[in-house]
Amino acid sequence: MTLWKLTLSYDGTTFHGWQIQPGLPTIQGALADAIHSVTGEHILPQGSGRTDAGVHALGQVASFASPTPIPLPNLLRALNHALPPSIRVLHVETAAPHFHARHSAIRKTYEYRIFQRSTEPHAQISQPENVCSPFDAPYTWDCRWRLALEPMQRAAAILCGTHDFTSFAAADPDAAQRESEDSRPNPLKTIYDSLLERTASRITYRVTGSGFLHHMVRNIVGTLVDVGRGSLPPAEMHRILAAKDRSAAGPTAPPQGLFLASVEYPSPAHPHLPSDKSGVTL
Amino acid sequence: MTLWKLTLSYDGTTFHGWQIQPGLPTIQGALADAIHSVTGEHILPQGSGRTDAGVHALGQVASFASPTPIPLPNLLRALNHALPPSIRVLHVETAAPHFHARHSAIRKTYEYRIFQRSTEPHAQISQPENVCSPFDAPYTWDCRWRLALEPMQRAAAILCGTHDFTSFAAADPDAAQRESEDSRPNPLKTIYDSLLERTASRITYRVTGSGFLHHMVRNIVGTLVDVGRGSLPPAEMHRILAAKDRSAAGPTAPPQGLFLASVEYPSPAHPHLPSDKSGVTL
Repeated sequence: MTLWKLTLSYDGTTFHGWQIQPGLPTIQGALADAIHSVTGEHILPQGSGRTDAGVHALGQVASFASPTPIPLPNLLRALNHALPPSIRVLHVETAAPHFHARHSAIRKTYEYRIFQRSTEPHAQISQPENVCSPFDAPYTWDCRWRLALEPMQRAAAILCGTHDFTSFAAADPDAAQRESEDSRPNPLKTIYDSLLERTASRITYRVTGSGFLHHMVRNIVGTLVDVGRGSLPPAEMHRILAAKDRSAAGPTAPPQGLFLASVEYPSPAHPHLPSDKSGVTL
Repeated sequence: MTLWKLTLSYDGTTFHGWQIQPGLPTIQGALADAIHSVTGEHILPQGSGRTDAGVHALGQVASFASPTPIPLPNLLRALNHALPPSIRVLHVETAAPHFHARHSAIRKTYEYRIFQRSTEPHAQISQPENVCSPFDAPYTWDCRWRLALEPMQRAAAILCGTHDFTSFAAADPDAAQRESEDSRPNPLKTIYDSLLERTASRITYRVTGSGFLHHMVRNIVGTLVDVGRGSLPPAEMHRILAAKDRSAAGPTAPPQGLFLASVEYPSPAHPHLPSDKSGVTL
């Protein structure tokens, strides 16, 4: 029996999220189908966490155990051959015996992309980059407000540290349980980095934490946008965290701007293998 | 009555091409719907030419006449508000009285993107950029062959000048008529530029011509790929042109790598307006 660890990238536009659902296209379902076509086995791969419909991944991690002996490079190539082009396996490695993509994860990083129209709405002549390109639209929030970066940065920094993030978790208890990283999600999470940067017509928010509640990143982004457009002072983030009430925070940002960027595990993850021979990337 | 000239960009992935078809999503149909919602009029905009299902545009041009008086910046904003995010109006201007997006066009430029896996297929360890990203897949041909650029460049250069391009036109007469720029397409076209360049893991073909027959760019690319993988000597392009027979050329490249990059018109197109005040771009 071999335990496999896969690193995946996917365009979530046409999928109903990570979690397998009968009759609907999902990432987990497509991956299970690909594993079946390669190994002949019916195996449900475990992800580091669920992503919602329309949310993308640059580095999702999944694990599964299989008795089928397959050389490492062949597995990567065969899975990519079986998967649709909107899902790619970037890296395959064998994992240590007790590895689990979800339970072993210690940190996750998400990225959220906001498009900024770069001129005032009534400008008579302006530049082509002021329209959100159709090629960026599935991967960004085309935000109609002109956002002030510095107050957003101050608000984002307040989230660093260990807090109860109930105010930023989806209010729907079913949804919260569905997306949670435990069956009963612990609202205490540690945020290690919470940073915004502006490049040309895009604002990118990057957040690294010990774990995230359902809709937590999108609710943080919706609240940061309230700050950026001037409708919420940055220091209000303290009050919102203390309220432990979803209605204290801002709206939920749309899914298509969100990317699961990377998932970190304790190192060395594979004490039995030298790090330069533990995997194959294609 | 005002004659409007629009410059459009679109992601063709989810559309059944440019031409309006009952019950199917098309670019022309979506644009007609947007014009209707803005002006209240049922007007079919004319494009510079038809693009096939899955083909994209960076700078398609469309024209339509409307009696509704609308300030220029408002028209751009209102059309983009009414259109799906996968279609954007980049520029709006008023056109000279006899302007027609198709009949007035004098040159068009297409771009075709080919993804190249950058190592040998049996390499044990390689780099992540060897997998075609899910975010590039809808906009590129993920070509499994390792292509030699220089022979492709020599073959592409042979196409420059005025030739009968029957060998590169779709064999299906209905399709040829459907896509043609005239109701009876003239197979004589002049190619001004026909260039390939390689950057990182992408080969880009750019071709500028007086006009293009149905599938002509995709059939050229399929033939250039035959040259790049070593199955066709570059000088065979002379024989293929002379044959005036579709079966002499290579296969049709897939649609998703193709972009209509730009359309050129005689300058000055708008003798009555100074060039810096003739349009608005947002």
